Amino acid sequence: MKNMFLSFAFAAAASFAATALAEPTVGISPWGPDDEIGRLNLMTEETRAAVLSRVASGKSYDLSVDYFVGMPSWHGIGDPRYQYWLTHTPHGTVVDDPMGVGQEINHHVSYTGDAVSMYTHMGTHIDALNHFGLKGKIWNGFSASEHLGDRGWKKAGAETIPPIIARGVMLDIPVALGLEELPENYRITPDDLKSALSHHKVDLQSGDVVMIRTGRMRHYLDETAYMHNAPGLDITAAKWLVEEKGAMLLGADNLSLEAFPSQTEGDYVPVHTYLLAEKGVMIMELVMLEDLSRDQIYEFAFIGGSLKFRGASAAPMRPIALPLK
Amino acid sequence: MKNMFLSFAFAAAASFAATALAEPTVGISPWGPDDEIGRLNLMTEETRAAVLSRVASGKSYDLSVDYFVGMPSWHGIGDPRYQYWLTHTPHGTVVDDPMGVGQEINHHVSYTGDAVSMYTHMGTHIDALNHFGLKGKIWNGFSASEHLGDRGWKKAGAETIPPIIARGVMLDIPVALGLEELPENYRITPDDLKSALSHHKVDLQSGDVVMIRTGRMRHYLDETAYMHNAPGLDITAAKWLVEEKGAMLLGADNLSLEAFPSQTEGDYVPVHTYLLAEKGVMIMELVMLEDLSRDQIYEFAFIGGSLKFRGASAAPMRPIALPLK
Amino acid sequence: MKNMFLSFAFAAAASFAATALAEPTVGISPWGPDDEIGRLNLMTEETRAAVLSRVASGKSYDLSVDYFVGMPSWHGIGDPRYQYWLTHTPHGTVVDDPMGVGQEINHHVSYTGDAVSMYTHMGTHIDALNHFGLKGKIWNGFSASEHLGDRGWKKAGAETIPPIIARGVMLDIPVALGLEELPENYRITPDDLKSALSHHKVDLQSGDVVMIRTGRMRHYLDETAYMHNAPGLDITAAKWLVEEKGAMLLGADNLSLEAFPSQTEGDYVPVHTYLLAEKGVMIMELVMLEDLSRDQIYEFAFIGGSLKFRGASAAPMRPIALPLK
Amino acid sequence: MKNMFLSFAFAAAASFAATALAEPTVGISPWGPDDEIGRLNLMTEETRAAVLSRVASGKSYDLSVDYFVGMPSWHGIGDPRYQYWLTHTPHGTVVDDPMGVGQEINHHVSYTGDAVSMYTHMGTHIDALNHFGLKGKIWNGFSASEHLGDRGWKKAGAETIPPIIARGVMLDIPVALGLEELPENYRITPDDLKSALSHHKVDLQSGDVVMIRTGRMRHYLDETAYMHNAPGLDITAAKWLVEEKGAMLLGADNLSLEAFPSQTEGDYVPVHTYLLAEKGVMIMELVMLEDLSRDQIYEFAFIGGSLKFRGASAAPMRPIALPLK
Repeated sequence: MKNMFLSFAFAAAASFAATALAEPTVGISPWGPDDEIGRLNLMTEETRAAVLSRVASGKSYDLSVDYFVGMPSWHGIGDPRYQYWLTHTPHGTVVDDPMGVGQEINHHVSYTGDAVSMYTHMGTHIDALNHFGLKGKIWNGFSASEHLGDRGWKKAGAETIPPIIARGVMLDIPVALGLEELPENYRITPDDLKSALSHHKVDLQSGDVVMIRTGRMRHYLDETAYMHNAPGLDITAAKWLVEEKGAMLLGADNLSLEAFPSQTEGDYVPVHTYLLAEKGVMIMELVMLEDLSRDQIYEFAFIGGSLKFRGASAAPMRPIALPLK
Repeated sequence: MKNMFLSFAFAAAASFAATALAEPTVGISPWGPDDEIGRLNLMTEETRAAVLSRVASGKSYDLSVDYFVGMPSWHGIGDPRYQYWLTHTPHGTVVDDPMGVGQEINHHVSYTGDAVSMYTHMGTHIDALNHFGLKGKIWNGFSASEHLGDRGWKKAGAETIPPIIARGVMLDIPVALGLEELPENYRITPDDLKSALSHHKVDLQSGDVVMIRTGRMRHYLDETAYMHNAPGLDITAAKWLVEEKGAMLLGADNLSLEAFPSQTEGDYVPVHTYLLAEKGVMIMELVMLEDLSRDQIYEFAFIGGSLKFRGASAAPMRPIALPLK
Repeated sequence: MKNMFLSFAFAAAASFAATALAEPTVGISPWGPDDEIGRLNLMTEETRAAVLSRVASGKSYDLSVDYFVGMPSWHGIGDPRYQYWLTHTPHGTVVDDPMGVGQEINHHVSYTGDAVSMYTHMGTHIDALNHFGLKGKIWNGFSASEHLGDRGWKKAGAETIPPIIARGVMLDIPVALGLEELPENYRITPDDLKSALSHHKVDLQSGDVVMIRTGRMRHYLDETAYMHNAPGLDITAAKWLVEEKGAMLLGADNLSLEAFPSQTEGDYVPVHTYLLAEKGVMIMELVMLEDLSRDQIYEFAFIGGSLKFRGASAAPMRPIALPLK
Repeated sequence: MKNMFLSFAFAAAASFAATALAEPTVGISPWGPDDEIGRLNLMTEETRAAVLSRVASGKSYDLSVDYFVGMPSWHGIGDPRYQYWLTHTPHGTVVDDPMGVGQEINHHVSYTGDAVSMYTHMGTHIDALNHFGLKGKIWNGFSASEHLGDRGWKKAGAETIPPIIARGVMLDIPVALGLEELPENYRITPDDLKSALSHHKVDLQSGDVVMIRTGRMRHYLDETAYMHNAPGLDITAAKWLVEEKGAMLLGADNLSLEAFPSQTEGDYVPVHTYLLAEKGVMIMELVMLEDLSRDQIYEFAFIGGSLKFRGASAAPMRPIALPLK
């Protein structure tokens, strides 16, 4: 986390030297004043039917990671780590008898119950459009002063995100570049994306779910290594994917999609504010792409539904990939 | 909860008068000594391909409920309620500056982060096979003494549950019986299931995901009403579905699938111990079936992946239903 | 909780008919612009010495309640209940080996560790002055816009509350009125307080810690009974104690000190806003006074220190009472 | 934490070479089979009266630390860090209206509420006798199999710990040794304790609360520095304090009282098991002794009450020290 902190501090210092530019502002939705899901509106019954009709077989890839005590987290800036605890155990119910059924029955019926707590941006997850805004507003102009209560946003919360069925494309950047994994702090450029498309012999279409592999997931079980100086997407690459290629949803196998430190004056997460606040593009993080990479699967039906946490800025998701004909 | 407590107490009292019967014991898996997922082994690449090839269109149904503060929970026996809290807000980051970037940048970048905590058996979820066992063991003979640590089970935890793609059938019991919803404490029998199949003009196949609608979900937003004396599946109906019809996974729109109070001496959750511990059949609860009922969709591709909480006795899931040709 | 909700709703409805009165505003401290503890400034080395010199013996009374799963809480409006969970157990460490020391040592060293979570206003506790304010400000004019971050208040948080050593007086209202306990929703008046002082043959002094017994604590183990329509202090009684008698700190054995429903238009907790925001008087709640009542101890040295939760609106405390010569 | 892990591993490896010695077992209380508090039984009305009668003035020292996000914790082995979150804010209640009182009243009444979660062994706290045992039993022979449920121990939980009023003595080891603070991993010996007593010109008495200053608290605000290779008490020093000097309660300003790595074969926390399990001596940790050190206060009345968390292995406490005549 130290390195990231320095990066943020650098961005802050840099901003004082900024020349006065037209500042970015939140995007207003072409889908109307009630829109809370942005470019997910590109998904329709027709687009879903199109991709489902191309599913090749019963082969399925699991794109999510495990949740476990000690997994990578944002505790460096104070957010809760993943916690798991038992609330009922076969032994404990014999001692406690929480049901009031007596010792004999508690010996017979062996009950296990448990609970978890977590920051919403842990494990494989999707960011809702309220996660990052600009100047107190989020996508489509909803404002914190009017719409943010003590239990989250009244607008664009995770419960508004529909189940996603769309064409997915994985861009395996290290493979395209002939590397095992991208180096620390590597910034993925539009040329890297083009190289991957060329290598994979696929093209992007409007409405795609685009998944970027950096190779960082190889270190997922070692939270320090996973968090440290991750490679990620440069802002130019994010813009190319959205503006030139019409991507509907972007994701990656790293912690935060984008490359750090920020090179945009006055903004420590410029890819996040660009995608979420300006363009209405949701972001997936910590997506497990290793199996797709191993099997060289670059095009697939992406199917997944995130948990409907009301008002939340993100939600966990366990999507699958089904290769296409 | 009071009523459920009384039910449990009744079961306990009854047990003292029990005649000596052969007691149920945990099932040993036909899929071998390492098996942790029981009848989900019925799912193969071929069964997935078969159902995916029959998807009719891009029409999709969301089978899950929202998570919100005040949602139905097991707090009556002390389990944690769902909690949601903000860890970063656009206003708070200006006051706190958690990134160390300075006030100007915090005014520009509006950051929202949040956290949740919950009992694992809340909202739409699937029970892992370790949730209920018999005499200290779970499905396939794994024992608490050897396999249950302070961070959950080393065996049959939620992380072992694969993404599920299978034929799904909804049995809309109140519709079959000409009711709006089943009465309090109604016990669904094999005949009720047969009536529903007949009404819906579908039959069950080995390997199906069978979803039982009781109508109780109409009260989901009122936790007291939702919890109170729910209707559910009688043990005879559970046995019929598994032993006569070969069901792979059972689910319902109520809190606990099964009918209370238990009518089985010495066991306060006989359907759970039968399915999970004896037969290796996982259970889904709080499944949202109202839209399927409204549109009279009884057969569909069921697609969903539950969160991989290591060692856990259950995990949330947001499955979808795709109607079949 | 239902009843309390109705009370609040009543207060809200009533407010629309309110005639325009001079509205209350937060108090500005006579102890200067940096003051965060209000009337606790009345406590000095001299006042502490005076009361400590009068301690009669080694007899000590414990004024706090237990924390346990199922204890009274504010979950009716969504606040977290008390949770307790084990993170290490003698058995679990053998299975998990969290220290990496091996099975032999884990069998020998039996380790138990545990964790809790709670709303800060649970069990015997003290409210910090930031708990209730008026129009976005708290005592001494500190404002939420400037001083409230995502991790609490930068001003008047619980960490600023000093350990308290002061003369304590308990006013046992039911005993003075010849009752076992006060009836539901009973509103304690200045006359009741005078009756108690007369009955107890004590008087109040400036700087006192004044503890009000309602008798409600007899129901502490039954959270529903404890929460339901509690008796409490009328605003006139609070004013009399502070303005006529110079009380430094007020407390009671009920959940919220004050009587509900509010009879003050436009304010659902008028005693709280009067004491905390206008007068800088902290409040203790859920104080265990049963032993003092049984032994007819009305005057004592009150000694206690609350936990220093940074920025918090309250903190738990386990004070003691030492009878005086 | 790394270093501590290595230490534990070392202890484990060493144990395999151990010659067969008489193994330690839990102590049986001289205060009878129901005793759950061990040597705190030395405290009586007379001992309390004796020390209270010697209080010199109204001068009071606060012996506890702040709780804040990022404070030192045991997260290295998976235990929860301290978390604080807001459940009600002046702004949020306007948006949410949790009381149902309407916007006007929510603008007028500015409500702040908050919650915390924590491992019980954080901040200034006391270990209950159930924290460490031997071979599945704790002090006085209570066994996990019989007395440990899912909500903690039925015996020797934190709720059994009485408020403590006793003579306190601080042994300022670095001052006695002419150091600013003890070096990393320094092991305090009986000779060091004797040097401190000699330097301070005090002696110990049976029933004392003995507080050991290492100087480590100077790093409390930097959790990494605070946790790293702390100095502590050697087992010989612990035995000398209990067996030669009759100490009732031991505490220190470091994380764990004792020195690491363990030099006792087969036990990674030999001072804990010796004190808690064998001798019935509770332990205080993270005690703030800097002010006492600055003012050279070595003898005082120690007064404090820990929170009554039912069944817990520890509880936070905010004790004070009152210098004696």
